[in-house]
Amino acid sequence: MTSRSTAQDLDRDDPLAHWRDEFVLPDPDLIYLDGNSLGRTPKRTVEAIRHVIEQEWADDLITSWWENGWLDMPLTVGDTLAPLLGARPGEVAVHDSTTVCLFQLVNVAIDLSGGSVVAVEATEFPTDRYVIEGISRIRPGISVRHGLDDLTGVDVVVRSHVDYRTAAVALLAEETARAAAAGAITVWDLSHAAGVVELDLDGAGVQLAAGCTYKFLNGGPGSPAFTYVRSSIVETVEQPIWGWFGQRDQFAMDNPFDARDGVGRMLNGTPGILGLTGARCGIELSAEAGIGAIATKARALADFGIDLADEFGLECSTARPPVSSGGHISIIHPDATALQERLAERKIIVDKRDPDVLRFGLSPLTTRFVDVFEGVSALAGMLDA
Amino acid sequence: MTSRSTAQDLDRDDPLAHWRDEFVLPDPDLIYLDGNSLGRTPKRTVEAIRHVIEQEWADDLITSWWENGWLDMPLTVGDTLAPLLGARPGEVAVHDSTTVCLFQLVNVAIDLSGGSVVAVEATEFPTDRYVIEGISRIRPGISVRHGLDDLTGVDVVVRSHVDYRTAAVALLAEETARAAAAGAITVWDLSHAAGVVELDLDGAGVQLAAGCTYKFLNGGPGSPAFTYVRSSIVETVEQPIWGWFGQRDQFAMDNPFDARDGVGRMLNGTPGILGLTGARCGIELSAEAGIGAIATKARALADFGIDLADEFGLECSTARPPVSSGGHISIIHPDATALQERLAERKIIVDKRDPDVLRFGLSPLTTRFVDVFEGVSALAGMLDA
Repeated sequence: MTSRSTAQDLDRDDPLAHWRDEFVLPDPDLIYLDGNSLGRTPKRTVEAIRHVIEQEWADDLITSWWENGWLDMPLTVGDTLAPLLGARPGEVAVHDSTTVCLFQLVNVAIDLSGGSVVAVEATEFPTDRYVIEGISRIRPGISVRHGLDDLTGVDVVVRSHVDYRTAAVALLAEETARAAAAGAITVWDLSHAAGVVELDLDGAGVQLAAGCTYKFLNGGPGSPAFTYVRSSIVETVEQPIWGWFGQRDQFAMDNPFDARDGVGRMLNGTPGILGLTGARCGIELSAEAGIGAIATKARALADFGIDLADEFGLECSTARPPVSSGGHISIIHPDATALQERLAERKIIVDKRDPDVLRFGLSPLTTRFVDVFEGVSALAGMLDA
Repeated sequence: MTSRSTAQDLDRDDPLAHWRDEFVLPDPDLIYLDGNSLGRTPKRTVEAIRHVIEQEWADDLITSWWENGWLDMPLTVGDTLAPLLGARPGEVAVHDSTTVCLFQLVNVAIDLSGGSVVAVEATEFPTDRYVIEGISRIRPGISVRHGLDDLTGVDVVVRSHVDYRTAAVALLAEETARAAAAGAITVWDLSHAAGVVELDLDGAGVQLAAGCTYKFLNGGPGSPAFTYVRSSIVETVEQPIWGWFGQRDQFAMDNPFDARDGVGRMLNGTPGILGLTGARCGIELSAEAGIGAIATKARALADFGIDLADEFGLECSTARPPVSSGGHISIIHPDATALQERLAERKIIVDKRDPDVLRFGLSPLTTRFVDVFEGVSALAGMLDA
């Protein structure tokens, strides 16, 4: 039987264990298993935001847009993120919300495909479904098809790389190629993948993707999303939300719109510098720790949790290796809401998705094996009692 | 001849003078005349952001979305802003960038009008023009017309309430009514008006508006924009960027999209909490000082600056009272770029818009009459020498 000391041994041997010291952890007794929804607070973020507010904003004022790199921040932070995605420099921009990024990319994919049929799983994360439905309301002739098994006649596919319920990882290269063979362009949603799965967008032939920085990348609440556009197609891409940050000569006030070169053409309005600063700090931490090591630990945490859940006889819907992302484990129970509350009373914070999924989020830079042990065993104890 | 002591007398009698103490002003010698581009840093923002990061994010973690009001922040901050706009509670949401807000509103206006012709001044602020052009690329049949003199056949009008070059204020009620008489809905861009002009959106019959919080509202670099939708029409409004924050039951993951009641339906993705916190602090300051007093001081600052520019024989393109917003004065000179740099060397920060406009921004909570005197007289001295 797996015991607490097994978990402690795994933590002792964990090469990423010391990264936990990089985070603000005010309550040492808290077991936080919700880093898949909101990552924890890097210590450097506290300092960086303070610097941006007290030095760059308060003291340097308007000159910061040029002198402190604010104007280019969506692209420089994107370049920091690129290696974590297997993307090249100049292929990633950090900006807006995932919803806005997906809205832009689905429009781009429709235009690139020259077609009108957008396919999505009926069980896909709501935002992905909503975005397509919304586009179909303003673009006549666009139709939405549910299901991805048969892609005949499909022009655009929208799908999550990691399933938010089961943590299952879709085969990136194979599925991109399968869609391409059917004549469809895939827009990948990397929200539950970025910062926890080792990605190779370049090698997998991905053309368009978006994702989120406030989960495993620890960017802070509502930190901006990111857009990836493959460099070989970016100059043919025209996104529909035209604003002055997407304009070639931003301060030439009389020109007609002329999209700037590269992924910067995905930008639209003035970016939020505080949010971008948080995103930058979180992304830097993951880049320094190394996405290979992070992904390895994520899978190890998930393996440990799944085995433990099996031992305790819990119903665990998590995908099994090798197709698990490791980002979380899901335990199914009809009393999920009440159980989440009872765990919280014991300072164990887990995530829940209606109607019956408890998610134990595994964020490799801050989650310990002993946290997984405490969470799963506490839940098992409640169900035994 | 106006002298420095005239300015000092005006500052002494200024009922808003003490609000300057609410801001972080690291360099007492700096003359900052660019608050129309980036407002200064409220002291309370430093504390509020620290609290959000160190307490709400780091300690309360995911529960903050419910327990600390993060989920509703776009609407609660909107309600704080509403009185500054002459709007009712529930009519304003603070979210995304001005570009995204305008994109949503222009689409809404097209749908409400049932038409296809969108009119804008050829000299309008670039973002407003770009947004319409972008929409016309994905919505077949939408055409863009330049000029607002003749609105025959126009369905939607997009215009700034305050001209970014001359600070001229358009007649809100009259122009809204003139468009309506021609069968057109007006989307007002309040970016250069909010926080410096007394607005009565309700009384003026405005239906749709957007604007910015990082200028006169001192929300911080790239702080989120705002959307106003008149409550009498909001339930008929359908914006095109569908995301989970615009969904009636946000956490019911299997439902089709169903827009929530009220102005919350304008939301789309996860809002940036740090940016919203900055916006909230800046808006609260203006609300406490009172928009009536702020607008009165803005006009007084502008009157003073215009008179001074006239005395010095500078070419001043600012609109004259009563149609000046007071937000800035504009001085035309072919060497604007070099003059801006020479002023900066003397710690006088002014704004510039190509090719030849120097803008002296007047932000009533932080700009003193003596700042205006120093700025205008320094410029005059350079041109005399």
